[in-house]
Amino acid sequence: MMRGLKLGLVQVYTGSGKGKTTAALGLALRASGAGLKVSIQQFAKSGEYCEIKALRRLGNIKVSQCGSKCFIKGRPDTSDIECARRGLKKAKGDIFSGKFDLVILDEVNVAMKLKLIKIKDVIDVIKRRPKSVELVLTGRDCPASIKKMADLVTEMREIRHPYKRGINARRGIEY
Amino acid sequence: MMRGLKLGLVQVYTGSGKGKTTAALGLALRASGAGLKVSIQQFAKSGEYCEIKALRRLGNIKVSQCGSKCFIKGRPDTSDIECARRGLKKAKGDIFSGKFDLVILDEVNVAMKLKLIKIKDVIDVIKRRPKSVELVLTGRDCPASIKKMADLVTEMREIRHPYKRGINARRGIEY
Repeated sequence: MMRGLKLGLVQVYTGSGKGKTTAALGLALRASGAGLKVSIQQFAKSGEYCEIKALRRLGNIKVSQCGSKCFIKGRPDTSDIECARRGLKKAKGDIFSGKFDLVILDEVNVAMKLKLIKIKDVIDVIKRRPKSVELVLTGRDCPASIKKMADLVTEMREIRHPYKRGINARRGIEY
Repeated sequence: MMRGLKLGLVQVYTGSGKGKTTAALGLALRASGAGLKVSIQQFAKSGEYCEIKALRRLGNIKVSQCGSKCFIKGRPDTSDIECARRGLKKAKGDIFSGKFDLVILDEVNVAMKLKLIKIKDVIDVIKRRPKSVELVLTGRDCPASIKKMADLVTEMREIRHPYKRGINARRGIEY
């Protein structure tokens, strides 16, 4: 089995439509199937979601979370900022450790938008990363400066969403 | 653990950007983590992709494929059509069996576009499905009539793609 990537790229999944985190999870699944080592850092999220349970069953996938469950709806406070910064530091540790082939910064775009972490710090990580590491950034409102640097950008456009019809998030499907 | 879905919806992932099948895989992963039963029917695809290996490790996910690996580039022949129709028949079997909560018709939009299967046959399945089954359709060029019926539609817009720079698909990342 191949070990490692010759050329790691930078992928961005952004936009308001459903499927950004889900696509990143699918990438983690596929990479795991190829024997690649995966680290997922989830920003602005916590809680034992169903996908986390399934990922743990797969092996060779490390999942870390930072953030309190609900702060996105309110105004982020100092502890949210601390938490997100620790998350970025941990992710950087994984990126530069030589131990991971794919590092997913889930909802990092949201963390930048909320000013929990600085865009220039993320740009710095992208620029200095080992070229064997594939980096995936998700979340709506990806900054233009980062989209410009990425090798692959997909914008998930919401054409229709059941939340608008008052249907709530369902366990096992949306979370 | 919850068993089954109260309300299964119809989700469509279409557009030319990367992330459609990958998002469906992520959904399968999440549903599996919630103890839901998943069936994935891949149209116009065959081969032991890395994601298939990982999915088999998860349990409670059934994966079927129909189609020869390369026909999409050429003109589909009778055996491709036969194959896709068998695939739809199998998927229908799963949808109406009462054994699955989530049924993914991966690349079914492509199969319709190539006229391997009829749009009206897929519409018929959508209309008559048990309401406890979540149905996910992926692939570019989803017919407008199906988008109209879906509860959730995300269009993956390609903003940038490395293939355009001559970077080929990489094992563990793109397949």
